[in-house]
Amino acid sequence: MAKKKPVRKETAESMGARQREISVSEFFLKNRHLLGFDSPRKALLTTVKEAVDNALDACEEAGILPSISVELRQLAENRFVVHVTDNGPGVVRKQIPKIFAKLLYGSKFHRLRMSRGQQGIGISAAGMYGQLTTGRATRIWSKTQRQACAHRIAVQIDTKTNKPVILEDEEVEWAPAFHAEDPHAEPVTAHHGTCVSIEMEAAYIRGRLSVDEFLKQCAIVNPHLQLHYRVVLLSKKDPKADAAQSDFIGQEPPWTVFARGVDSLPPPSGEIKPHPHGVELGVLIQMLKDSSARTLKVALTQDFSRVSDKAAHFICDTAGLSPKAHPRRIAHQESEALYKAINEVKLMRPPTDCLSPIGEEQILAGLQKEIKADFYTAVTRNPTVYRGNPFQVEVGLAYARPGENADLGGDDPVRVLRFANRVPLLYMGGGCAITKSVNSVNWKSYGLAQPKGSPPLGPMVIMAHMASVWVPFTSESKEAVAHYAEIIRELTFALQECGRRLSVYLNKRKRAAEAERKRGYIEKYIPHLALGLHDILKFSDQEQTKVEAALKEMLERTHLQV
Amino acid sequence: MAKKKPVRKETAESMGARQREISVSEFFLKNRHLLGFDSPRKALLTTVKEAVDNALDACEEAGILPSISVELRQLAENRFVVHVTDNGPGVVRKQIPKIFAKLLYGSKFHRLRMSRGQQGIGISAAGMYGQLTTGRATRIWSKTQRQACAHRIAVQIDTKTNKPVILEDEEVEWAPAFHAEDPHAEPVTAHHGTCVSIEMEAAYIRGRLSVDEFLKQCAIVNPHLQLHYRVVLLSKKDPKADAAQSDFIGQEPPWTVFARGVDSLPPPSGEIKPHPHGVELGVLIQMLKDSSARTLKVALTQDFSRVSDKAAHFICDTAGLSPKAHPRRIAHQESEALYKAINEVKLMRPPTDCLSPIGEEQILAGLQKEIKADFYTAVTRNPTVYRGNPFQVEVGLAYARPGENADLGGDDPVRVLRFANRVPLLYMGGGCAITKSVNSVNWKSYGLAQPKGSPPLGPMVIMAHMASVWVPFTSESKEAVAHYAEIIRELTFALQECGRRLSVYLNKRKRAAEAERKRGYIEKYIPHLALGLHDILKFSDQEQTKVEAALKEMLERTHLQV
Repeated sequence: MAKKKPVRKETAESMGARQREISVSEFFLKNRHLLGFDSPRKALLTTVKEAVDNALDACEEAGILPSISVELRQLAENRFVVHVTDNGPGVVRKQIPKIFAKLLYGSKFHRLRMSRGQQGIGISAAGMYGQLTTGRATRIWSKTQRQACAHRIAVQIDTKTNKPVILEDEEVEWAPAFHAEDPHAEPVTAHHGTCVSIEMEAAYIRGRLSVDEFLKQCAIVNPHLQLHYRVVLLSKKDPKADAAQSDFIGQEPPWTVFARGVDSLPPPSGEIKPHPHGVELGVLIQMLKDSSARTLKVALTQDFSRVSDKAAHFICDTAGLSPKAHPRRIAHQESEALYKAINEVKLMRPPTDCLSPIGEEQILAGLQKEIKADFYTAVTRNPTVYRGNPFQVEVGLAYARPGENADLGGDDPVRVLRFANRVPLLYMGGGCAITKSVNSVNWKSYGLAQPKGSPPLGPMVIMAHMASVWVPFTSESKEAVAHYAEIIRELTFALQECGRRLSVYLNKRKRAAEAERKRGYIEKYIPHLALGLHDILKFSDQEQTKVEAALKEMLERTHLQV
Repeated sequence: MAKKKPVRKETAESMGARQREISVSEFFLKNRHLLGFDSPRKALLTTVKEAVDNALDACEEAGILPSISVELRQLAENRFVVHVTDNGPGVVRKQIPKIFAKLLYGSKFHRLRMSRGQQGIGISAAGMYGQLTTGRATRIWSKTQRQACAHRIAVQIDTKTNKPVILEDEEVEWAPAFHAEDPHAEPVTAHHGTCVSIEMEAAYIRGRLSVDEFLKQCAIVNPHLQLHYRVVLLSKKDPKADAAQSDFIGQEPPWTVFARGVDSLPPPSGEIKPHPHGVELGVLIQMLKDSSARTLKVALTQDFSRVSDKAAHFICDTAGLSPKAHPRRIAHQESEALYKAINEVKLMRPPTDCLSPIGEEQILAGLQKEIKADFYTAVTRNPTVYRGNPFQVEVGLAYARPGENADLGGDDPVRVLRFANRVPLLYMGGGCAITKSVNSVNWKSYGLAQPKGSPPLGPMVIMAHMASVWVPFTSESKEAVAHYAEIIRELTFALQECGRRLSVYLNKRKRAAEAERKRGYIEKYIPHLALGLHDILKFSDQEQTKVEAALKEMLERTHLQV
C-alpha cells in the first residue's frame, strides 16, 4: 500500500497563494448536471431543446414564420451529431463565436420580455458538453438577409477563460433547406437562417422523456411552427433502434413533417421596465447608478414602469428628497429612504400586455390535433404579477371515452404536459409548481378518482402553460417552475375551472349513457307492443307496421331531447 | 389603458447589437434561489453555513483546533447582522476583497481534496445577498500570525463585473475573542483569525431548518470544534422571540458554548490527482495542453494518479503513440486514440487515503452526547470510487426506549441527519441520495414498521455522512447529494449493517422484557411456595425463610443468564 504522505500545514500566506479565479465554464463543466447534461439521454434532449428555443425566439423577434429542421444522426453506439436548422434572421458574423461558445452571453438576460431563452447559457453549454465528450467543435452556418454568402464557423470554448476559440472561419455558398416527407420532392430553401451542428456523446431512447416527445409537444404549443424531424440510426445491431428506421442504412430515412397549423405569428410580446414594487434595494441602487437621467424624478418615471410624474413627486416628498437630486448621489447616500418611500406609494400594477399567451382557441386546436379524446376545454387566466413580474397561466384538458385512446389508461394517473413560455418541460416534474397545483386540486368533486396528494386517475391529459417575462426555474436546466404562491394560486384557479367544465361533461355523458340504456330496452319491446296492439285492437298487418314506425319515431324524438 | 406599443421587427444586425456579456454575479443575483437565498429564513442559515464551512476548512488546513463564534443580532423586524469569528490562520490582505466579494473565486475548486467548500461561491454570495437586501457592505477583520495589526475591510461586489469594490480599508487593533457562557468571565483571545460580518434581510425561526439545528449538528460531526453561539433579538414585541432571550434588552444574552469533545484534529485529508478512468475526453485534452511535462509518458505518470511507467508505455503502445511525443501535440491530433487506450488499460483504483471520515468511535460519541437513546451503533464503510472520485460513507443510529426521548415519537418517521464532508444538510431532503437510501432499505426485516417507499417509523435517529474529494450536489446551494448508483449502494450497505445490529438489540430487549415479566410473576409466588413447603415438609420458620432466600437467589441467577 502507498504510504500516506504527511500533509503540509498551511499558513495564511501559502493559502493565499493558491487562491484562483474559477471561470464560469470550468464551474459548469464540473457541474454539468446543473445544466441538464447528467446523462447521454438527457444531454441529447437538452441540446435539441436549447437549439430549438433559440431558433423560435429569433424567428419570432424578426417576424418570420418559423421553419425548423432537427436531425439526429448516429455516428457510433454512443455518439450522435445534432443538426438544427432554422429560417430565422441569421446571426451577424461578429456575434457567432460568442453566442455559441461563451457561457453567460446573450441578449435576453438584461430585459424583461417573454422569451424562451433567458440565461445566455443553453446553446454554449451544449457545445461545451460536445467538446467535453468528443473533443469536437461546434459548427455553425449562418446567413443574414443582407449577406450574399453564408458564414461557416467552427468554435470551441476555452473553458479556462470562458472565451470562444475559432477553429474554422470561411464564407460559403449555403442556404437553409427544409425537406419534405416525400424523399423525391425538392427541398424548400430559405434566404436566411442558421444551422448549428454539435457532435456529442448521447443516447437516443424513445418515450416520455425523449426528443420525439419534446418536438411533438413543441408543435402543440407552437402551431405557427413548421417542424422537420428525422433520426438516422446506424444499423439494426443497435438494440434501441426501430426496424422501420434502421432499414435505411445507406439510404436515408424520410423526414417527419409537423405541418404548420396557423399562418400567423403569435402577437409579439413587448419589453417592459421593472415595476418599482418588485425591485429590491440593491437593484434600486444599481439602477440609480446606471441611470442616464440627470434628476431623480426623471430616473423614476423613465427607468420604471407605472411611475407618473405625480407618483414620482409623492415618492420624493415622502423620502424627503429633492426631485432634482442627481440619481447617482441618491444611490450612495439616501437610497434606503427612497426605497421605503417607493414601497409606501400606491402604483398601478405592472403592465401585462407584454405577455403573449397561447390562447384558449389555439390550445384547443393543439390538443385536438395531437390527442384523441372526446371532451376538450381550455382556460386562459388574466395576467397577474409575482414579485413585480407579470405572468399568465393557461390550462387545457382532454378527456377520452373509455378505450378511445390506447395511450390513456382509464385507471392510470392523468398525463400532465407542462410548458413555460411555450417550451415543453419534460424532466423534474416532481419539483414543479404545475405538478403541485394539479395534485392539490380536489378532482373528486369533479367526478374523478384521486389518491391523496396525487394526480387524479382517468383517460385524461392536462396541459398547463406559464407565460412570463421572467420564469422562475428551479435550476439552470430550466425543467421546473419554482413554487411561488401567486403562480400556484393562478394554476389552481385555471385547473378548477377546467374541472368544473369536465364535471358538466361527465354528468351529461352519464345521463346520455343512462338514456341510451333505456332506449335500447324499449326499442327491443316495440315489435312486441305493436303485436299486442294488433291482437287487442284487431289491427291489420299494415296498421301494425305503421304503429311500430310511429312508436319508433316517438322514441327517437324523446331520445334527442335527453 | 395604456396602448400596446407596436413591437419593432428585429434584424440580425439589430439583434446582434443587443448581445451582451452577463456577469456571473448578475446571473446569480437574479437567480439567488439557486444559491440558497430564496427566503429570509433560508438566507440566514445559508450565510451561517458558508461562513462556518470556510472557518472550519481554514483552521483544519492550517492545523489549528477551531474555535468559532456565531452571533445573530437583530436590527429590525426583518433585518439581522451575522457575525462569524474564527481563530484560523487569517487571510492575507491582498486576498480579502476577492475571497469575500467575487463569485467563483477560491482555492478549493481546482484540486481534488476533501473540504467543505468546493465552489468558490458561498461567502461572496451571502455578501451579495446582504448588499441586495440592505445595500450594506460585507465587513471583514483578519489577522495573520505574521501581522502585528489586523486589517479591517468593507467590500461590496460590483455585480456588473463580478469584481470587489473596497469601501473601507484600515489597519486596526483587533484579535478574535471568544466569550464563555458565564458573562462575568473574561473572553479568550486568539493571536490570529478572521471575522466576517454581513447585514441582511433575514428571519430567525427555530426548528428543524434553523441555524440552531445546523450548529448543533455541526458540533456532533466536528467534535474537535469549540463553538460559541448567541442570538440577540430586539424586543419582546417580536412574536418569534423566546421570553428567555428577549429579556436581555440593553443587557446582552449569554453565549451558549458547545464544548470541544476531542483535543485533536481529524487526520488531515490529502490532495490527489485525477484518476485516468474518471477523466472525460475534453478534460484529458485540456490536461495535456496544460501539462508542464515535455513528453507524453511523463505527462501520464505525473499528472494522473495510478499510472506507472509500465502502464504509461502500455497506453502509448495501444494508442500507437510515441511516449516521447509532446503532450500539446497529442492534445490537438491524437487525443481520441489516447483516450481509448487509457480506458483499455488496467489500472489500480484511485487512492482512497485522501479521505478523512468521522470514524465509528466519533460518530458514537457525537450521537451519545446529543441524542438521548438506549442503543447506539455506527458503521464506517471502506472507501470506494464514483466517476474516478474516491468517497466514503458512514452511518450512525440511535434508538430510544419508548418515552425515553420526548423528541422522538414512537410512531413517527425516524429522523434522518444528513452530512456531506462534515457539513449538515438541512434542506431538500426529498431530492437527496441519503433519504432515498434510507427509504429503500427494508426496515421491516429489522423489526421496524415502514410504510412503502417511506422512512421507517420509531423512536430513532439515523445519521449518514458522505465524505469525498468532490461531493456531487444537486444544486449550487449544496443541500442534497445527487443520485449516483455507487453512492446509494454504499449507503444501503451501511444502513443494512446498522439495521442488523438494531434487530439484535431489539430482539434482546424483547426477550429481556419477557423474562422480566416471568420473573415478576414467579417472585410474587415464592412466599406462597415456601409456605407450602413449610406445611408439607414441616419446615421451621427459620428453614422457611432460608428456602425463600435460596429460591430468590436462584431466580436472580437465572434472570442474569437471560
